[in-house]
Amino acid sequence: MTTYPPFGAGLWHFASYLDRYATDGYAPPTTTLEQIALAGSVGELSFVDVNYPFTDGVTVDQVKAALAENGLEAIGVTPEIYMRKYSKGAFTNPDPAVRAEAIAFLNEAADVVRALGARYLKVWPGQDGWDYPFQVNHGEQWRLAVDGMREVAQANSDIKIVIEYKPREPRNKMFWDSAAKTALGIKAMGVDNVGVLLDFGHALYGGESPAAAAQLLIDHGLLWGMDVNDNLRGWDDDMMVGTVHPVELFEYFYTLRENGWEGVWQLDQFPFREDTVETAKLSIRFLKHVYRALDVLDVDALRAAQARQDALGAQKVVQDALFGTIGEGE
Amino acid sequence: MTTYPPFGAGLWHFASYLDRYATDGYAPPTTTLEQIALAGSVGELSFVDVNYPFTDGVTVDQVKAALAENGLEAIGVTPEIYMRKYSKGAFTNPDPAVRAEAIAFLNEAADVVRALGARYLKVWPGQDGWDYPFQVNHGEQWRLAVDGMREVAQANSDIKIVIEYKPREPRNKMFWDSAAKTALGIKAMGVDNVGVLLDFGHALYGGESPAAAAQLLIDHGLLWGMDVNDNLRGWDDDMMVGTVHPVELFEYFYTLRENGWEGVWQLDQFPFREDTVETAKLSIRFLKHVYRALDVLDVDALRAAQARQDALGAQKVVQDALFGTIGEGE
Amino acid sequence: MTTYPPFGAGLWHFASYLDRYATDGYAPPTTTLEQIALAGSVGELSFVDVNYPFTDGVTVDQVKAALAENGLEAIGVTPEIYMRKYSKGAFTNPDPAVRAEAIAFLNEAADVVRALGARYLKVWPGQDGWDYPFQVNHGEQWRLAVDGMREVAQANSDIKIVIEYKPREPRNKMFWDSAAKTALGIKAMGVDNVGVLLDFGHALYGGESPAAAAQLLIDHGLLWGMDVNDNLRGWDDDMMVGTVHPVELFEYFYTLRENGWEGVWQLDQFPFREDTVETAKLSIRFLKHVYRALDVLDVDALRAAQARQDALGAQKVVQDALFGTIGEGE
Amino acid sequence: MTTYPPFGAGLWHFASYLDRYATDGYAPPTTTLEQIALAGSVGELSFVDVNYPFTDGVTVDQVKAALAENGLEAIGVTPEIYMRKYSKGAFTNPDPAVRAEAIAFLNEAADVVRALGARYLKVWPGQDGWDYPFQVNHGEQWRLAVDGMREVAQANSDIKIVIEYKPREPRNKMFWDSAAKTALGIKAMGVDNVGVLLDFGHALYGGESPAAAAQLLIDHGLLWGMDVNDNLRGWDDDMMVGTVHPVELFEYFYTLRENGWEGVWQLDQFPFREDTVETAKLSIRFLKHVYRALDVLDVDALRAAQARQDALGAQKVVQDALFGTIGEGE
Repeated sequence: MTTYPPFGAGLWHFASYLDRYATDGYAPPTTTLEQIALAGSVGELSFVDVNYPFTDGVTVDQVKAALAENGLEAIGVTPEIYMRKYSKGAFTNPDPAVRAEAIAFLNEAADVVRALGARYLKVWPGQDGWDYPFQVNHGEQWRLAVDGMREVAQANSDIKIVIEYKPREPRNKMFWDSAAKTALGIKAMGVDNVGVLLDFGHALYGGESPAAAAQLLIDHGLLWGMDVNDNLRGWDDDMMVGTVHPVELFEYFYTLRENGWEGVWQLDQFPFREDTVETAKLSIRFLKHVYRALDVLDVDALRAAQARQDALGAQKVVQDALFGTIGEGE
Repeated sequence: MTTYPPFGAGLWHFASYLDRYATDGYAPPTTTLEQIALAGSVGELSFVDVNYPFTDGVTVDQVKAALAENGLEAIGVTPEIYMRKYSKGAFTNPDPAVRAEAIAFLNEAADVVRALGARYLKVWPGQDGWDYPFQVNHGEQWRLAVDGMREVAQANSDIKIVIEYKPREPRNKMFWDSAAKTALGIKAMGVDNVGVLLDFGHALYGGESPAAAAQLLIDHGLLWGMDVNDNLRGWDDDMMVGTVHPVELFEYFYTLRENGWEGVWQLDQFPFREDTVETAKLSIRFLKHVYRALDVLDVDALRAAQARQDALGAQKVVQDALFGTIGEGE
Repeated sequence: MTTYPPFGAGLWHFASYLDRYATDGYAPPTTTLEQIALAGSVGELSFVDVNYPFTDGVTVDQVKAALAENGLEAIGVTPEIYMRKYSKGAFTNPDPAVRAEAIAFLNEAADVVRALGARYLKVWPGQDGWDYPFQVNHGEQWRLAVDGMREVAQANSDIKIVIEYKPREPRNKMFWDSAAKTALGIKAMGVDNVGVLLDFGHALYGGESPAAAAQLLIDHGLLWGMDVNDNLRGWDDDMMVGTVHPVELFEYFYTLRENGWEGVWQLDQFPFREDTVETAKLSIRFLKHVYRALDVLDVDALRAAQARQDALGAQKVVQDALFGTIGEGE
Repeated sequence: MTTYPPFGAGLWHFASYLDRYATDGYAPPTTTLEQIALAGSVGELSFVDVNYPFTDGVTVDQVKAALAENGLEAIGVTPEIYMRKYSKGAFTNPDPAVRAEAIAFLNEAADVVRALGARYLKVWPGQDGWDYPFQVNHGEQWRLAVDGMREVAQANSDIKIVIEYKPREPRNKMFWDSAAKTALGIKAMGVDNVGVLLDFGHALYGGESPAAAAQLLIDHGLLWGMDVNDNLRGWDDDMMVGTVHPVELFEYFYTLRENGWEGVWQLDQFPFREDTVETAKLSIRFLKHVYRALDVLDVDALRAAQARQDALGAQKVVQDALFGTIGEGE
């Protein structure tokens, strides 16, 4: 019987969603504690990444208790530095007072990391960037983005921080937009407690190969977390994993295994119109298939094909493993 | 002194916005009446396209009065068939009861068209489409989309209906997604009171040439309304007009003029982080520049260049007109 | 034992290729007769689509003989109306003399269709379109494109003509760029011997759902041929089928089967750096897997899920069929 | 009277082109010496970037003489490491013999840099990358790409080398694909004679802001050369500069000026269907307009707007400068 890796999900997977059109929300809102209960009801999740602040009135102790009750651990804490106050950026906000608030809030979130015993503070500065040509001084953005993150890192040297990069949305362009730029910025910080959380879909719609992005980050010692989902390659659709790009997903997990990367296989999905628990279940079913496919993959043949850049040879063994019954016709 | 065409805007230009991250909104909410007052304060707008339903408690009579007070007319009414109830579609919702509600609601909105003396009912079925491969039966979607629109058209044969197509968002794929598909669907309806509202940005990020889309719709007798904005060609960013694609914008308005199309030059922009009134003013300033540039454009030279597919000849006269001082260096 | 549909390929699948950089070609050139022999050596192909003119000195009789010898039939003939002479278009060339030459050449190609007993003349006007804003009069392009095709159709009313649409390349924008626009243009021709050849990859990178495009064309009685390949959704990469988008490919063939569409499953691939015969073999192996997966697909469950727009329900049965061993973990 | 910066062009701007369809070429071929004469005839060019090897039989001395005769200097030499031999890569070719040949050839090209007194060896490894998921080991690609470039740099420590990055084409994905990744790789080389040539269009269609890419490279001391063109944001169309994205072009040159970057304003365009000399002339006319617009730009107001992230304020002064007559309506 297969022993699978631990699975996880962003707690927001079990929230409801708004957008600029359906302003009444795709479903009734849920509280942090309800979301934890829903995550628990999936039955396959070991970890959640917890938004902070919690919904109204919920305390850290309640969250802690709810996690324990549902057999879950907090893998990370995600401070919401993308609300109205930060609409022109958290680290790179033009207003120094807002930047100071952002950093104070991140320090507060770091305390929640400590309280929950989470592995990292996840920082996704979705509003840091620009919308229009000429709107910002790009040199100044770099300085503010790098200096601000360094400041948070140095103030919290006992915990790990991961940056989740993304090409765009909600800003038309995000500052931390690719694996290479994030690695370059982290090097410029000169600290050792900042790494990267790699989102499969962000790499994909940003025009990266997610597998190549993973390898680059691993080779720079920076791949400290990751999550998966899917999209149509033009936007962060946060669809169910495996429904559009199963082959690149398989390459992604192959790359992680080849490098001995061991970590949580997390979901970052937004089931706008779907049952959130059932979406998680179906997604994990697919991830298990991927995991078993890695077990039967002819790795020697694949390595040999790659050494020749032999696309046909590589695809054949990949198809044999991923599309289990493909060989039956022969 | 130049006499400009009438300018207009979607009333939502003066609203505030949410998205899936900044769920507290980019600015405090405004009422329908406040939005009308803001539109009036632009000082250059003659028309607005009015969302329906109005914000809480506002009546048609109040809207009518507010429009008059602010020197505005309603060019169209846009029923909000993209809220939670319609999250799986209005016309193509899998639930016949929801489809019936949608049609009843559209008929109600048609009454508002009549009450306000507007030119058309604008139908933008943003939730009609699909998210995932295999999610829908595409033949059935066509039938429901076409039949439903015909039903609304026949029930309201005294008013005009315009469909605003868009490639995607909020659905991952929208059913009415291009000029040609919309024209094809309208022909299949067999009615004469359905046309198209062409959004410049929708054409652009859908991979169309907005000018070619306009020409196609004019040649099919279907261009009954239009609005403009800008984007980065990958999403409906609804940015200020002229800030990214001024040349294609100029070609678009050139095409309208060449065809003798006379209508309102409308804005469909979402100034998430900007002052809504100032955004409208700066946009209209740019549209006036475009209008004057059309006046000085050497149309004969341009036609002659087009007759040869002479890109250089065409661009030269276009640049002379649009970038007014470009000839000074010679 | 499964009886598969007939397989086919563009004869160019067995050619060598140039591009604007590797002007010495990715492999030594091959003659038409050598290409036929290579196609024959795949051992699974029943049909080829034949470029015209043939390589130097090869005659129709030689082609006929070679096809017979290799157990192949010509499904179509593809005239090369995209060489230097036609670089500003065949049907829409600004020079009437070139347009006349194009039509004469197409009539000549129609004779080859007759001589080879092929099913259709395939017309892919890759140079008909535009590169720059303002380069063409879009109304004039429509007239020339539609009138020219009608003229060819009327002059050859005994044979079928299929238009292969494509969003772009080699022109920055192609005139026939989507299923809907092509259907609209064909209707305007008022002839009954023009249909569409749908290329899976063209639909995909044009932002269409290939399955939805197929359904639309079937519902308009216009899907007369099709071919498959794959790409990264931003360009016509003409990669091996199934290597990137197997799920949408499966949906495409499901749609064909649901509609009782029976035709040749053709390959349109450009193996720039790969062995052309082995590429065809691996591709057909994948297509056979798809065909068998359709046999085991729980169609009733899928239809029921689609009737509810139930993405989870649909994906589950699709994954069960396509990823044969996915259920093993349960 | 305005003193403009020196202008330059890739010598290929004056060549003719093939693609995979128009294999007979868009125009008759020209020799290296003819291309130099054409470049000279533009009358505004001071520099050319010279492809190597030269066309058949042309010697370095002939090139030197022809450049002098036409009032041109070689700014760089571009070795053609993208022909058939290198179709699976130059630096990252799976065959060590081909890699050795590539490096020997680059060393030979470095001698041409010395002979022509050019400023740099320009290295554009267009075939280094991958086409298919699973085709390469991404860690190995990084090692080969970085080690090979270091080897060339160390063997030619007396000359400068610039890497021109590009997202894709001819490979489906290129290894050196963004400003940040190239900077990261150069840092890993540990040499001081490798920098970057930034192509405006490559940044644009790769989803970068060209201005932000320029700033990042300047801040890392790596912007050693640049060229411009335009495209439709989905492919490297190499269109005439200013015809699609004049605003982002203006931001790009503004960023260069703000940083005191002084260098040659080069064209990298492929006028497939246009007169090559006239294309260069019209392009330089536009660049002169941009240069003069920078002279009249209200830089203080722009900086102040950027300090507030005030998109409206920034766009207003930008429009005043770029669209010279826009203020006339007020």
